Amino acid sequence: MANTFTGVAASPGIAIARAFRFANVEYTPERQIIADAEAETARFRSAIETAKNEIEEIRQLTEQRLGAQKAEIFEAHLFLLEDPDLVDAVVDKISDEKVNAEYALREVTAAVVEMLLELDNEMVRERAADVKDVSGRVMSHLTGKPYATLSGISEETIIFAEDLTPSDTAQLDLNYIRGFVTEIGSRTSHSAIMARSLEIPAIVGAGTMLASVPDGALVILDAAEGKVLVDPSEQVLAEYREKKARYDERREQLKRLAVQPSLTADGEHLELAANIGSVEDLAKVLENGADGIGLFRTEFLYMGRSSFPTEEEQYRIYKHVLEKLNGKRVVIRTLDIGGDKELPYLELPKESNPFLGLRALRLCLQREDLFRTQLRALLRASTAGKLNIMFPMIAVLSELREAKRILAEEREKLQQEGIPVSDSIEVGMMIEIPAAALSADHFAKEVDFFSIGTNDLIQYTMAADRMNESVAYLYQPYNPSILRLVHMVIKAGQRAGIWTGMCGEMAGDQTAIPLLLGMGLHEFSMSAGSVLPARELVSRLSRKEWAELAEEALAMGTQEEVKQFVEQRSTT
Amino acid sequence: MANTFTGVAASPGIAIARAFRFANVEYTPERQIIADAEAETARFRSAIETAKNEIEEIRQLTEQRLGAQKAEIFEAHLFLLEDPDLVDAVVDKISDEKVNAEYALREVTAAVVEMLLELDNEMVRERAADVKDVSGRVMSHLTGKPYATLSGISEETIIFAEDLTPSDTAQLDLNYIRGFVTEIGSRTSHSAIMARSLEIPAIVGAGTMLASVPDGALVILDAAEGKVLVDPSEQVLAEYREKKARYDERREQLKRLAVQPSLTADGEHLELAANIGSVEDLAKVLENGADGIGLFRTEFLYMGRSSFPTEEEQYRIYKHVLEKLNGKRVVIRTLDIGGDKELPYLELPKESNPFLGLRALRLCLQREDLFRTQLRALLRASTAGKLNIMFPMIAVLSELREAKRILAEEREKLQQEGIPVSDSIEVGMMIEIPAAALSADHFAKEVDFFSIGTNDLIQYTMAADRMNESVAYLYQPYNPSILRLVHMVIKAGQRAGIWTGMCGEMAGDQTAIPLLLGMGLHEFSMSAGSVLPARELVSRLSRKEWAELAEEALAMGTQEEVKQFVEQRSTT
Repeated sequence: MANTFTGVAASPGIAIARAFRFANVEYTPERQIIADAEAETARFRSAIETAKNEIEEIRQLTEQRLGAQKAEIFEAHLFLLEDPDLVDAVVDKISDEKVNAEYALREVTAAVVEMLLELDNEMVRERAADVKDVSGRVMSHLTGKPYATLSGISEETIIFAEDLTPSDTAQLDLNYIRGFVTEIGSRTSHSAIMARSLEIPAIVGAGTMLASVPDGALVILDAAEGKVLVDPSEQVLAEYREKKARYDERREQLKRLAVQPSLTADGEHLELAANIGSVEDLAKVLENGADGIGLFRTEFLYMGRSSFPTEEEQYRIYKHVLEKLNGKRVVIRTLDIGGDKELPYLELPKESNPFLGLRALRLCLQREDLFRTQLRALLRASTAGKLNIMFPMIAVLSELREAKRILAEEREKLQQEGIPVSDSIEVGMMIEIPAAALSADHFAKEVDFFSIGTNDLIQYTMAADRMNESVAYLYQPYNPSILRLVHMVIKAGQRAGIWTGMCGEMAGDQTAIPLLLGMGLHEFSMSAGSVLPARELVSRLSRKEWAELAEEALAMGTQEEVKQFVEQRSTT
Repeated sequence: MANTFTGVAASPGIAIARAFRFANVEYTPERQIIADAEAETARFRSAIETAKNEIEEIRQLTEQRLGAQKAEIFEAHLFLLEDPDLVDAVVDKISDEKVNAEYALREVTAAVVEMLLELDNEMVRERAADVKDVSGRVMSHLTGKPYATLSGISEETIIFAEDLTPSDTAQLDLNYIRGFVTEIGSRTSHSAIMARSLEIPAIVGAGTMLASVPDGALVILDAAEGKVLVDPSEQVLAEYREKKARYDERREQLKRLAVQPSLTADGEHLELAANIGSVEDLAKVLENGADGIGLFRTEFLYMGRSSFPTEEEQYRIYKHVLEKLNGKRVVIRTLDIGGDKELPYLELPKESNPFLGLRALRLCLQREDLFRTQLRALLRASTAGKLNIMFPMIAVLSELREAKRILAEEREKLQQEGIPVSDSIEVGMMIEIPAAALSADHFAKEVDFFSIGTNDLIQYTMAADRMNESVAYLYQPYNPSILRLVHMVIKAGQRAGIWTGMCGEMAGDQTAIPLLLGMGLHEFSMSAGSVLPARELVSRLSRKEWAELAEEALAMGTQEEVKQFVEQRSTT
């Protein structure tokens, strides 16, 4: 009987191949007293240089394969090899204690890693993994023992490892490597993100039991279900071969849909758009044939840096995105910082309930300097494509009016400076606060479009923090209370003659799509990977039929009833 | 021209009288070396005993005048006089350093006060004031210099002081003292609370400029506006005499309403009920002729102690309240802990957004032991009056069903044990989460009543923490989005044949009442002091007329429009 392990499905797909156990054995050097500290230091510095050259090669390789953003991690590694906490500390230890470089490196690395792990923070833990990765590479050059690498694999393989470092994943040869499974990690850890970029199936966080899988065992990796089956029977193997064939075929079918329009079964045109957070996400958007960008989260331009992006920097990015979309709609949301998103260089007072605090547009109206810079950048970029500007976190009309007033002022200033601004910018708002949904009829008269942000709308309507496990049962996208709000917004939009979209997770959800279609939603913005399955689904649905079914769903009392109802009706 | 000072209106009313400057001059004894430490210790202990007897007298006086709860502070003072940090420390100092008792007492008191003030916490600061109060009294017996007291005042006076201690306020002779003004303090400090209990006008936190008011000056204390006018002109004086007369007359008029029914101008019966937090609030409820208790916040039974109240303790309190209300409706809300209310002995995980977390019924459904104990106490007390049980923080039907299931189980158990339970308990729910309001039609089929909790409902509908200053502009009770939700709930209740009440601050708000009346609200529950003004207001309003006006208000776009509209229509 097959052994089965479960873990977190980090990147979808099915693979069947032999297991390859990969481990960078940690080397534990003896402490030796050396005579010539200067020579030993030189030996250490030379190992550092060799490691730097290697990392630079990996960096270039990654940039070619996966783009500049994915290669950034290796720049961080190069910096680490110049970090005095690491390098100078080793050199000092060698000369102060007259010890061998291997021992000094190991001691310093252990101390740095321990210090980092004490800070209970995911980002810092990733940093500890980076330190180990870099230090292991230097150690290999000191000892002459090879640093284990995945680059030499030349047969079909599924990698089994405790975790994969950035330099590990950068060297995966996709001609042979069919997927990987790690003991630790979550959907947001480095290895998970890389698997999705590389489009290979992967399961992370499968636990230490994984170590019992023998090297060379035949395994099935079902990353749709988050399962690993070891030594499967012939029967199971046959089943999975078929399942994999179906999966691969479906993937191919979907790929063909990338060049098709988004049409319902009764011939109505929809917009199936994608959400992006950075320029790097554009490739996926184009590849999946999205009808546009329904949400560009600009806060990521402000994060991971030490000062605000300038107007010029922002202008270039917005212009680039608009040009790449080549006339398709691009909805750019103004800064949504605060809540769970902090900027270290923007000192905001600590709040007891940040999700109910000074965030997004509320903050922008208090910090007009930031807001005006972004609006100018957007207005200047507007001639490069079909720009829609969207304001987040509006609850009351006065906020919308104030935001529009500032936008009009900046437009006028630019025109006076002789800088061209498009005449056809649409200005809209997120509907993510219950108050905005409840007064959508008034808002609809003052905007060009709505986009419903369901993640926050659900959180506020249910009064349940979507990051808090103990109230996770209240995150109910199909709950009739939520559907009624959504319905109210779409109807208010229709009566005022404006279009309504949705840019929360719900917009790409296969159970929600039929209902949203029935209620009259025009634009669905989702992660790029969901666009093609959504296009396939809507092609089988009739708007007219679902308009009636949605009415029935709106009259139900619980999410369970709605879900069951939609699932029954979608499949028949 | 009159000098004017402003401060926090801590207790309403108007007073006109001479200023009396009250200060307990701090006595700074010299350090003296004494020969007989034992005799000096005995002298100190005797001063302590005398102080204890005095405080015990004040305690008894307070208990008679203001009830047991208000007298508790003096039990704390008596404890202080047995506190080793204070008493033993002084005794040790006398014998170790051979110093006089006055000096030792002063040094030790200063150290304790300094330590307490370093802890930046309002409750601890109040504690420092207690230590000073008690120590000053002991000092007066050591030195033979009288401890300044307010008990001897025998002409009409307004007290001016830096602050008033518990023993100061306990001795105010209301035959002569017309009000007081303090330099420090807030609406929640001891002196402010006492002023409201004593029903005398008071202003607190008026600042140090107050020291410039000469003893004996004629002053007007306008605690409706938070103003103090010193040496007013004849004209101003005349105006204020008239204003005071009107104010006092209105107070008398309102008092007469305490025995009247709550009727609208077109003859419709309403329930104007009061909110309470403890048994001590009952006197006010009865005095103001409330039609019942619309919200008993039971969490206060759980706070300020070190373990959960037992079933028996709770039973006695619920029974007492039901008996006192003598057949009038008493709505008791089950435990609403979590959010901003914490219990030190209930260790809950720290949450990033506690207002969106595991609180109230959500917590009770996870901690059934707590919930069942409270439900048993309520069921047992039910035969003592007209009990309504109300569940807080319900978002989805499954929560309500689960709570009702547990209640039914406890009822059955009690019946099997032969303990009588009333057959006419009404079971209802708070509507304070947007989701519950939006699905009120479904909920209405499964409860006996609704009570709209506007404080939370506004907070969630606006996505704005009601304790967070930077988003305070979004706390908009008259915003049409809020009114629409309220309207939805009342209509759903009417269609299902159940009554709807409101127990948030909005229910006692003079601008909101006409609208709520027009929308069909049946029960209004507010602080006891607002009941009579509300009864007076509704007697002038026609439900029919306001039903039409409310429709108009519901169609408006902003809170400002609604407010202006209601104010215009209420006065005409």
